[in-house]
Amino acid sequence: MTATGSFFRSRWVDVPDNVSEPGGGLPKGFAAAGVACGIKPSGGLDLGLVVSSAPATTSAARFTSSGTQSAPVLLCRERCALDGIRAVVVNSGNANAATGRPGFENAVKMQGAAALASRCPEGAVAVASTGVIGVPLPVSSAITGIVQATHALRPDGEIDFARAIRTTDVLDKHACVDVVVGGGTVRLTAQAKGAGMISPNFATLLCFAQTDAALSPETCDLLLGVTVKRSFERISVDGQLSTSDTVILQASGESGVAIEPETEDEVRFGEALDAVLRQLALNMVRDGEGARRVGRVVVHGGSDDVVDRVAHTVADSPLVKTALYGGDPNWGRIIQAVGMAMPGTAPLAVDITIEGIQVCARGQYVPHDEEALKAAVQGEEVEYDINLPGEGAETERYFSDLGHGYVTLNAEYTT
Amino acid sequence: MTATGSFFRSRWVDVPDNVSEPGGGLPKGFAAAGVACGIKPSGGLDLGLVVSSAPATTSAARFTSSGTQSAPVLLCRERCALDGIRAVVVNSGNANAATGRPGFENAVKMQGAAALASRCPEGAVAVASTGVIGVPLPVSSAITGIVQATHALRPDGEIDFARAIRTTDVLDKHACVDVVVGGGTVRLTAQAKGAGMISPNFATLLCFAQTDAALSPETCDLLLGVTVKRSFERISVDGQLSTSDTVILQASGESGVAIEPETEDEVRFGEALDAVLRQLALNMVRDGEGARRVGRVVVHGGSDDVVDRVAHTVADSPLVKTALYGGDPNWGRIIQAVGMAMPGTAPLAVDITIEGIQVCARGQYVPHDEEALKAAVQGEEVEYDINLPGEGAETERYFSDLGHGYVTLNAEYTT
Repeated sequence: MTATGSFFRSRWVDVPDNVSEPGGGLPKGFAAAGVACGIKPSGGLDLGLVVSSAPATTSAARFTSSGTQSAPVLLCRERCALDGIRAVVVNSGNANAATGRPGFENAVKMQGAAALASRCPEGAVAVASTGVIGVPLPVSSAITGIVQATHALRPDGEIDFARAIRTTDVLDKHACVDVVVGGGTVRLTAQAKGAGMISPNFATLLCFAQTDAALSPETCDLLLGVTVKRSFERISVDGQLSTSDTVILQASGESGVAIEPETEDEVRFGEALDAVLRQLALNMVRDGEGARRVGRVVVHGGSDDVVDRVAHTVADSPLVKTALYGGDPNWGRIIQAVGMAMPGTAPLAVDITIEGIQVCARGQYVPHDEEALKAAVQGEEVEYDINLPGEGAETERYFSDLGHGYVTLNAEYTT
Repeated sequence: MTATGSFFRSRWVDVPDNVSEPGGGLPKGFAAAGVACGIKPSGGLDLGLVVSSAPATTSAARFTSSGTQSAPVLLCRERCALDGIRAVVVNSGNANAATGRPGFENAVKMQGAAALASRCPEGAVAVASTGVIGVPLPVSSAITGIVQATHALRPDGEIDFARAIRTTDVLDKHACVDVVVGGGTVRLTAQAKGAGMISPNFATLLCFAQTDAALSPETCDLLLGVTVKRSFERISVDGQLSTSDTVILQASGESGVAIEPETEDEVRFGEALDAVLRQLALNMVRDGEGARRVGRVVVHGGSDDVVDRVAHTVADSPLVKTALYGGDPNWGRIIQAVGMAMPGTAPLAVDITIEGIQVCARGQYVPHDEEALKAAVQGEEVEYDINLPGEGAETERYFSDLGHGYVTLNAEYTT
């Protein structure tokens, strides 16, 4: 069965053969809702709840490494059994960050209300918040929203949930796939947010994934760790780490199909999760006002440390990003970024190829078809390949362009 | 004597009492010129030459640490006596970078022609180039320009020289001050380039300073090292390191006034050099299309490493820069950048003050006069003070805003 659905749009995502797109609906055991409770001044959906009814639900989570983590992130890390999260409650419109002890107490209140409403222990409830930093959370609105959401929980509530966790996102960011494994078919859904401009006032990377496969907590953690490294950790919008980034995978086991460690099933399920998270990550990079193109930089070299540094220096360079926005085949900016990432190595024998056209060999320009290159960088996706001296290490990074929309959204908004 | 001239414009530059602005003219022993030789398609001035007639001239130099250094930088490092540079030849319009062995040979030819014309050894001639990367330098134009410039050398040729080394700079970047020391008065001049958007295709940081004081090579090197650290190494335009950055200080000794090590004179001369280079650095940050404001971030804490990392993370943040552009008192972006620079430290007890108004104490928002803060961030210069846990370490960094002009210049230009 080959997936032909509209969710997988990028040539950079390999969609496994055993994955199909049924169109919607949460995996067995899950229900979700999204409601408007008045935190967003616009009156839009701003509180989402997703709950698993299965007491044996397993889970894994990843959070921002920021030194100024939001209250909900601190709460999850301190007071959640992260391998057994049953319910996730999320508000948008306020990040509950830089809010100190009162902010932490508000996150505790949200956790308590959601636990009561979902009939599970407080430690099984994760909390996430996204929105403005440094403003007290209107916690009574959030509590009211939790009660409303509890009444609105539905097995196909994931679209409302996805809408409630969004802020400035323009593109939809939810997926629903069925994965055929040896023991049967399991469902995997995910809802994410994160606009083209990852910005602490607007956007934060949040992703919540659910499956009805039965996974041990260790398998959950392993698969989430590997796939997050290959997706959300490989994207660069503006190089800014949020106070609030949160990714959670929950497995209810209600399909009755178990994914055992070190089996072909684990590989298949892992590939499906990988494809879903990579496409969601690419959607984040592509999203946002004014964003025209997505770049991918692939770096080969002799050391993991160096290829990582070069990849993120290129991906975070505002000069590379503005050239991508302008459809400008300006490879001088690529070599400048490489040089910046590798101080003290001059003269450096670097090769650079853009969309298959080599422009630089061993640090020196290569005569090439400039018209063909200009045409090649006008597409929606542009690939840059960088070969450094040495062998054995390789990485990739995806990045957005930098255009007027970014400036407008981030400069002309007034708090 | 108090300086009241127009060069020192920033409140962040302390102008020493013993400094005055005579209006122009190179220090004794120096002559300079700037000519048009056809490297720039516009036909503008594109070749500059500055020569000291004193065989005993001392000097010191600093270069980019990029791994993809331009041919002229490689040449200077390999084949110049950097403590005795007599002549500096600079072209704009072409960076002679990523040009391999042929590019190096072209830099050698420029050095040879300038040595012949200036009647000094090849090793006493420094070469610098700025402009497009990865395009062969039209070296015969450069050689013709060197001959022209030699005939045009004048004791007041520094303005033409300064114009010839510019690319997209809008603001003038040259200074002329007299410094009163114990033994008399010495002159100090400097010409720099580097637009608001430090970009390898347009701009690179170049600064050439001359004095008729007599300095030992060691004093030259010491003073240049200290003042470059406090000026050009503290500015951030877009966080991008150029292939070509070059700073050179030359001392002819022709005033007959010697600056001896560890004397009050050394302090006075050093303070004057410091003020000149800091103002030039601030002019680079302020320059460029669309740039409205300059920010200064001052960070206090317990470790040099940490305060440096926080300062550059804040200064390089596109979110902080767009807020500065928009006159937006969005301190959430400051705390987000601090958190990003200090992973694993949550919860972090950080204090943030903007233009004297405290907005955050020990990681938590502080109620403040929001209207007063909004008004305060509308000025041409905005200061951010960050206090981290610990004591004893302090740094500062200056940064430009990020506005539509940056995007337009860097995206809509076509190579």
